Amino acid sequence: MSDFTPTERTQVKRLPKRGRYDRDTVYSILDAGFVCHVGFSVDGQPYVIPTNYGRSGDTIYLHGSAASRMLRTLSEGVRVSVTVTLVDGLVLARSAFHHSVNYRSVVILGTARLVEDSAEKLEALRLFTEHVMKGRWDEVRWPTEQELKATTVLVLPLEEVSAKVRTGGPIDDEPDYALPVWAGVLPLETVAKEPVPDPQRKNDPAVPNYMKNYRP
Amino acid sequence: MSDFTPTERTQVKRLPKRGRYDRDTVYSILDAGFVCHVGFSVDGQPYVIPTNYGRSGDTIYLHGSAASRMLRTLSEGVRVSVTVTLVDGLVLARSAFHHSVNYRSVVILGTARLVEDSAEKLEALRLFTEHVMKGRWDEVRWPTEQELKATTVLVLPLEEVSAKVRTGGPIDDEPDYALPVWAGVLPLETVAKEPVPDPQRKNDPAVPNYMKNYRP
Repeated sequence: MSDFTPTERTQVKRLPKRGRYDRDTVYSILDAGFVCHVGFSVDGQPYVIPTNYGRSGDTIYLHGSAASRMLRTLSEGVRVSVTVTLVDGLVLARSAFHHSVNYRSVVILGTARLVEDSAEKLEALRLFTEHVMKGRWDEVRWPTEQELKATTVLVLPLEEVSAKVRTGGPIDDEPDYALPVWAGVLPLETVAKEPVPDPQRKNDPAVPNYMKNYRP
Repeated sequence: MSDFTPTERTQVKRLPKRGRYDRDTVYSILDAGFVCHVGFSVDGQPYVIPTNYGRSGDTIYLHGSAASRMLRTLSEGVRVSVTVTLVDGLVLARSAFHHSVNYRSVVILGTARLVEDSAEKLEALRLFTEHVMKGRWDEVRWPTEQELKATTVLVLPLEEVSAKVRTGGPIDDEPDYALPVWAGVLPLETVAKEPVPDPQRKNDPAVPNYMKNYRP
């Protein structure tokens, strides 16, 4: 797949070797996460709000929980930064200075617009649902026209995009390798635990297959 | 402990019952996470950057990886939004519309300033290290004066702060409870896996006790 073109604003300047601009990397990070942090400004004050998202090709749909505050003041489109971060491990060096984190992140810059068309909204909701749990959409009750009206969805093209990736062990200063300090990586992983059925269940079937061995 | 005072900007307006302003809740979320998302604007474009942080009372220290871009244009203090989000589970309802996420988040608004004093910087680095892994600071080599100079730290008071918390199972519309759809919560947890020692180790001791049964 082709690369995104780094711009003055998306080029990774600090530790440039961590920068990635290829669609494979960007897509794989966006597809592995399901919570993004949306940044926008109102009256000069930045806000950063966590919300769900879904991806379709070079388009990102954002759930509207972040949108309410934005939409009170902006209707024509709002400049946003959308960041997805996956933490893969703690990098423990022999010096405090060289401690680090293994992570994968994507930063998207651009102007989000409100989705008003019902069909596009429905498609965005399908993406949110399938993004979090593949197979779920076909089982649940789909949104009514009224629910669609009550849902705010923003759409943002993937144009100005960059990823940053850190992998591997600690890099210590040469003399520090002799220090008697444990060094290495403590890998971190988000795992699913035993599903907790709704106590109010009536006709609920057994835990569906797509939830077994679920990995976010 | 006393509450933070909600302001026009921090009061949770959408789903206000999820809003929390007490220090116990805010502190416990900040102390359980270790990656925050910092939002700031440069030339009208918001940026959201993940970085590490540490807390001391009503003060948050931010690691400077986020600061470089800010500091190119701003030196007097920069308006930021700092958000910490912990995802606790997927909330699976019988309708697509009522799907949700159990989470705990804190949003801090304010003006961050650069830490220039060496002693305060050192204390911030101690907080970062101990925040990620309690017990680590006393074992590692501490920063030299030169390393402190090469480290950018921002400090931000906890003044305009709010938390949002969602817990519990799905809330479906009454008729939907009869649908044959599995509903409930799939709890998610971040866990540590087996430590991976640095292949370049020389005098490294065994895995320290503070890493065993580590829970982020």
